[in-house]
Order: sequence, then structure tokens, then C-alpha cells
Amino acid sequence: MQNFDLARRLAAEAIGTAMLLATVVGSGIMGERLAGGNDAIALLGNTAATGAILMVLILIFGPVSGAHFNPAVTLSFAFRRDIGPRDATLYVAVQIPAAIAGVIVAHLMFAEQAVMVSTNPRTLPGHWLGECIATFGLVATIFGCLRARPAAVPYAVGLFITAGYWFTSSTSFANPAVTIARALTDTFSGIAPGGVPAFVLAQIAGACLATAFLSWLWRTVPEPVSGSRESAPPAS
Amino acid sequence: MQNFDLARRLAAEAIGTAMLLATVVGSGIMGERLAGGNDAIALLGNTAATGAILMVLILIFGPVSGAHFNPAVTLSFAFRRDIGPRDATLYVAVQIPAAIAGVIVAHLMFAEQAVMVSTNPRTLPGHWLGECIATFGLVATIFGCLRARPAAVPYAVGLFITAGYWFTSSTSFANPAVTIARALTDTFSGIAPGGVPAFVLAQIAGACLATAFLSWLWRTVPEPVSGSRESAPPAS
Amino acid sequence: MQNFDLARRLAAEAIGTAMLLATVVGSGIMGERLAGGNDAIALLGNTAATGAILMVLILIFGPVSGAHFNPAVTLSFAFRRDIGPRDATLYVAVQIPAAIAGVIVAHLMFAEQAVMVSTNPRTLPGHWLGECIATFGLVATIFGCLRARPAAVPYAVGLFITAGYWFTSSTSFANPAVTIARALTDTFSGIAPGGVPAFVLAQIAGACLATAFLSWLWRTVPEPVSGSRESAPPAS
Amino acid sequence: MQNFDLARRLAAEAIGTAMLLATVVGSGIMGERLAGGNDAIALLGNTAATGAILMVLILIFGPVSGAHFNPAVTLSFAFRRDIGPRDATLYVAVQIPAAIAGVIVAHLMFAEQAVMVSTNPRTLPGHWLGECIATFGLVATIFGCLRARPAAVPYAVGLFITAGYWFTSSTSFANPAVTIARALTDTFSGIAPGGVPAFVLAQIAGACLATAFLSWLWRTVPEPVSGSRESAPPAS
Repeated sequence: MQNFDLARRLAAEAIGTAMLLATVVGSGIMGERLAGGNDAIALLGNTAATGAILMVLILIFGPVSGAHFNPAVTLSFAFRRDIGPRDATLYVAVQIPAAIAGVIVAHLMFAEQAVMVSTNPRTLPGHWLGECIATFGLVATIFGCLRARPAAVPYAVGLFITAGYWFTSSTSFANPAVTIARALTDTFSGIAPGGVPAFVLAQIAGACLATAFLSWLWRTVPEPVSGSRESAPPAS
Repeated sequence: MQNFDLARRLAAEAIGTAMLLATVVGSGIMGERLAGGNDAIALLGNTAATGAILMVLILIFGPVSGAHFNPAVTLSFAFRRDIGPRDATLYVAVQIPAAIAGVIVAHLMFAEQAVMVSTNPRTLPGHWLGECIATFGLVATIFGCLRARPAAVPYAVGLFITAGYWFTSSTSFANPAVTIARALTDTFSGIAPGGVPAFVLAQIAGACLATAFLSWLWRTVPEPVSGSRESAPPAS
Repeated sequence: MQNFDLARRLAAEAIGTAMLLATVVGSGIMGERLAGGNDAIALLGNTAATGAILMVLILIFGPVSGAHFNPAVTLSFAFRRDIGPRDATLYVAVQIPAAIAGVIVAHLMFAEQAVMVSTNPRTLPGHWLGECIATFGLVATIFGCLRARPAAVPYAVGLFITAGYWFTSSTSFANPAVTIARALTDTFSGIAPGGVPAFVLAQIAGACLATAFLSWLWRTVPEPVSGSRESAPPAS
Repeated sequence: MQNFDLARRLAAEAIGTAMLLATVVGSGIMGERLAGGNDAIALLGNTAATGAILMVLILIFGPVSGAHFNPAVTLSFAFRRDIGPRDATLYVAVQIPAAIAGVIVAHLMFAEQAVMVSTNPRTLPGHWLGECIATFGLVATIFGCLRARPAAVPYAVGLFITAGYWFTSSTSFANPAVTIARALTDTFSGIAPGGVPAFVLAQIAGACLATAFLSWLWRTVPEPVSGSRESAPPAS
């Protein structure tokens, strides 16, 4: 419907991804500092903030760039040919440094060192299963809603991550850019760098499974008219 | 409106019911592990996750299968002749093993034994009254919204269960497949097997009462045109 | 739009008001039992349940009876001549015993004595100011939304009470039927009977102020066409 | 669309801003009194109340005055020429004393002294960065939604502040009138007067940055037809 040029779409991805990470890491620090050692209370605050900001960021940047903020999501859109390979590569190339910038901003707000190395090990097979399921669920949420109720995408994504923070053992990173950036904070939401590669692989596996499953599920139903796919990026 | 074949509808019921149980059981484990013995805090996390995932799952699978995930709901739709007896039987035959699969997935994510037997007794008459009211409320929510505001069904169901986790003494299982599956986890959300039959009977009673009440309430109002019953399954 | 006879409208008021009170009192008991003496955690659960059930009940019974569940709201609709004096009287005559029935149901679910007398004193002038503001806000929410965004009424009412539980010193009863019924529970949400009359007077004052203020605010704007006032009761 | 005269618009700004502050301060007091020293639990209640009341107040007063309740927001609308300089000045002149009145009402409800001087120092550079980001985010939320999904503004604003309470080190005042008024309470949500000027400057900087960024982002997209900017104030 609207036509945004590449610079504007990349700016939306950059600001959105940075705000997302500032929220994930910042609310984790706030929760840890105030919760008096009760991690469930810290996680409640972390969850409320992350779910809410996702809804907001997708509401405001969805019409501009599609509001991916996530290489696994961009990859899934590329599989469906909703975004071309050049633009997809640029999206990912912007998402990762923007995510790191968001972590730094959170650290500066809370007077922590700008960049740290996480010492929080997340290396259990159960975590990898968790990341696979989390990213499967996230991508299924996006594509499931896009066909039948596109206006619900922003809320559905925020709600899915709200659930994922609690029901997956890995607390649903579900996003390679988020995973890399969270290796650079030694606070509540960090992940020690050694755990990153397996997380990213599990996320990509989950995204591929969801893309294939949703594609099969909707194969017999005709495509909606273009313009109704509210959160998909404009063809590039 | 859309036309999904039986295989796709059963797949939607299977994945949706498994995701629901993975969330109920997984978020219960997360809550119990982090909350330091304060069960109210654990229940807050369990509630947020379950309410949120229900909204998401109904948003994405409602247009495919009707998003029942629940034999009591399928039975109520069968009473109204919205789904035929053969399809209803198949729905239930898929929901129960899928629910058990969801419990196993939660256990694997959290490095628990794949299947356990719950030792959490839930056998008080107050619990049975709770289940009857919970399932009455759930079915009334679905049918009440379907006539007047079908687009609100996903949110209303998630909100009702959010309330039910706190206001019923049984924490609102409200679903025979969920009840059977939760007998196989010895964690926060479990129910010792001895309590299952009475829970299921109470749930069916509540569903029947709600179906009859809503049918009487709306009897004098003409049926909406077909296609507007967004979350009902396509006639089989 | 739809035309429900008086019996159906009164049934909707009765079931809805009873469900509301079962939720207020039941979730209060659940919170108190699980929260280990931390009343803020108990209030979080009580708030989540009450806000959520209000949204659900107004979604499903709004199209039938207007979903008042509250003599102060019925009185405000009567001032605006949206409901006649005979029907308004019958609404209130049903709301009060239904509210008491809801309290009894909560007690039975939680194996408490069916009826108790509250010993929780709520008699400070600050509480009365709180009730006046709470009911002002509730009625302003209903009438403010009815003119400009009628579909938002169910959500707005649930959100207002979510806020009210925390920002008013009295925790926003905002409803004479609720106040009378809560005198009959000696649990978290109770009010000792001596405090009831002042609460009810403050609530009626708040409702009158809001009705007058909203009427002035919207006086210069033409009435919407009938049928668009989604949650108002059909003229009697 | 609707046409409200200046008196009604100023009344909406006054009542709305006062209700907002009564909620911020009142729910802070409630949280602090009940949470037994765990500030994370107090902040959860404070967050739920503030996010919810913002949604309600914008739903009901948005169609009347635009529901600014915030000099930084009024300034941003003035930059866009959506409100004239005279009306903008009057808006701000009403917002500040109304905010103070809301604090006094909260104190009276909770039997505190009517006006106090806060002793809560908030003077770290991290706080200023937090306020700049918070107000950037708030204004970006409003203008981002107004163009593409105006009906989502009330929810998006409440969600953004829900996130902001947790992810910014300053807990997202994001509003000069709120900041001035919160200097007059020595409770949970207070700010010692010495911290006010830097907060207000940071907020204005954030609002200016967001206005410029959103203006650039949407420059190439044609204006929507008038009447669809649901929450903008009527031209003055």
C-alpha cells in the first residue's frame, strides 16, 4: 500500500531492533535490581516490558519495513519471496549492529559498563529444544495471522513472546540478532557466548519448520489481494 | 469462508493442543523453579503465559479448524450441529494424544522425565464446582461472542482463562484433554490421576449447561449469515 | 439492533453479576491463600482476574442486557433515559441478590462457610473519596466510549477497574451491589457492614457527577444513529 | 470530525491529566504500602495501573481534546501545526495545575499530607538518557500509529509506558507536567525538585527528535484524508 524507500525501511529496522534490545536488557536489569533475589518477579517485569514493546514497535514500524527486527523472520519472508535476497541481506546486516547498540543504550541508562561478556551459561539440550519451539511458534504466529487477520499481528507477536518467556526453558530468545546482542550483557538477560551458535541454529531450524508447516496449511486457500498483508514488507 | 480439508483441520487441532499443554506445563515449571516457594507468584507467570498463548493459538488456528483444542468445546459445537459426529470424534481423538505430546515436550525442554504420574491431589467437591463453573464460563464465552462479536473470541477466551486461573478453586482446567494430560506431570500444574474422572464429568456438565443457556438466550434472535461465525469450523 | 425480551435481559444481568462477584471474591481468596502474606501479590492476582472477567462478561452480555451488573450504572442510564424506570428497578432488584449468590458460589468453591460477615473495616474519609472517584471514572469510561468508540467499552471498563484496584485507597468497589455482597465475605475482598452505606452514597455521588459531566462534554455533538450504541440496553 | 469548543477541550485535558497523576501517585502509594519492601512488586502494580488508565483516558478524551495530558506531546503537535500556538499554550497552562491537583487527590485518598516535597533523588546522567529515550518512544508511538493505525493509539501509548516503566532507568516520566507534579509527593513515585529541570529538558529533546524522525520517515507518503486522524485535536 504505502511505499517506503530502502533507507527508510532500514532505519525502521534499526530503530526498532535497538528499542527491542534496550527493552529486553533494560527491563532485565530493572527487575534484577528491584526483585530482591526472586527471579520470578524479575521475569514478570521483563515479560511485561518485552511483550508490550513488541506490540508497539510492530504497530509503528510494521507499515514501514514489515517490522522484522529478527534475521529468522527476515529469512522466513525471503523463503516466501515476500522480500528479495538483496533487501533481506541488508535487513540482517542492520539488525545485528542495531541490536548491539540497543544493549549499549540499556547499559548506559543503568550506569553499567557499555559492553560486557555474559557469564550466564545457556547450553542445555532443553534450551535448544526451547529455542526451536519458540522460533517455530513466533514464525507460525506471524504467518498464521498475516493470512486471516493481519491487523492482529502486532498483538499476537507480543502475546506469543509473553507466553514464550515463561513456557520455554530458554525464555524464548527466538531471534539470532537478539541472541548475539545478549551475549554482550552480563546481566539478567545475558547468554554466555559459547551458547550462541547452538541457539542460532535451533532458531533457524524452528523458523524453517514453521515456514514449511504454514505454507502446507494454507496451500489450498487462495492468496489474499495484495495490500491486505498489513505487516509484510513492500516488495523490493 | 475458507475451506480446509480434514487433514489440515486435524493438524491445526494437534499442533494447537500440544502448544497449549507445553505452555500450561512449561510455564508452571518455570514459575515453580523461580518463585522461591511463593505459589502466587508462580501462578501469575502461569496465568500470563496460558492466557497469552490461548489468544495466539485461536488467532492463528481459528480460521483453520475452529481452534477447539478441547473435547468439551467440540462436544458443544456438535450439540449445535456446527460440526458433524464423525469430525467431532476425530477432533477429540487427536486432541488427547496431542495434549500428552505437549506435556512431554515441556518435560524435555526443562530436563524433566518425559512422563510422570502426578501426586497433586485435586479431589475436593469445591474443585468439581470450580470445574463446572469454569467450563460453563468458557463455553458461554465462546458462544456469547460468536453471535455478536466473533472477532473478539480469541481475546475473550484468553481473558476468561486468565480470570479462571484465579477465581476457581481448581484453577480452571476446563478441558478434558488438558485434564488427562496434566495427570502425566508431577509438577506445578499436575493432577493426580484419581481426580481426573470427576473433573471431566464436571467439565462436561458445565459445557452442557452453557450450551443450553446460550441457546435459550439467543433463541429469539435470527442466525447471522454464514461466514460471519469466524471461529466456528467449516461444516463437515 | 437485537431485541431481547425482559426475561433474557434479567437473566443476563443475573448470571453476569454473579460471575463478577464469584471472580472478585474467589480470586481474593486464591490470592490470600497463596501469597504468603504479601498483600501486593494477592492484589495483583485479584486485579488480573477482575479486569479480565469484566471484559469477558461485557463482551458476551453487552448485546443482551447492556451488561450493567451495577445499580450505579443502571441509575446513570436511567438518568439519560436509555432505560425506563420500571426496567431499571428490575435490573437493580436482580443485581443485588445475584451478587450475593456469586459470593456464596465463591465460598462453596473454596470450602468456606456459605455466608460470613466481614470484619474488614473500610471507613476512612479517604475511602469515600476513593469510591466517589472510582465510580466517576467507571461511568465516565462507559459514556465516554459509548459515543465515540462503542466497541471499546468492554476493554475500557476492564482496564479502568484494573487501574482502580491500585490507584484508589478503597480498591474501587464502584458498585453498590458489589459493596453489599462483599459485606458477606470475611476474606481478602470483604467490607465490614458498617462501611457499606457511606460507600454506596459515595458511589452514587460519583455516578451522578460523571453523568452530568459527560452530558455537558458531549452536548454540542449530535447523537449517533441508534444501533451504534453497542452496549446500551435496548429501549424498554 | 466532531467539533468541541475550547472550554470542553480544556476540561478534557484537565480531568484527564488529573486522573493520570492520581493513578501514577495513588498506585505507587498502594504498591509501596502492600509490597513489604519488594520494590519490583510495587512497580508491577504501579505499571499495571498506569498503563491501563492511559488506555482508558485516551479512549474517552481522545475524540474531545486529542488526549495529550503532556506538554511534550502538545509541543510536538504544535511543531506539526496540528494545534495552533494559542491553544497549545492553553493546553500546557491547564495540564500543569491539573497534574498537581491529581497528586493532591491521591494524597487525600490515602490520608497523606496534601502536598509534600519529594526527597527521592533522580539526578544521574543515566536517568536523563532514560527520559530522552522514553519521550522519544512515546512521541514516536503516537505519530507512528496516527498515520497508519489511528484506532490503536490509546492501546499503543498504554503499552509503551508499560514497557517504559521497566526498561528505562528513570521509569519513564516522559511528561513535563507529570515530572513537576511528582516533585510534590514524597512517596514511591516522587522526584526531588532538584532533578526536575534536567528531566524536563531531556523530555523536550526526546520529543523533538521523535517529531523530526517520524516526519522524515513518513515524508514520502501522502497525508491521510482528514477525519481519519482519530486522536489528533480538531484544528483550532
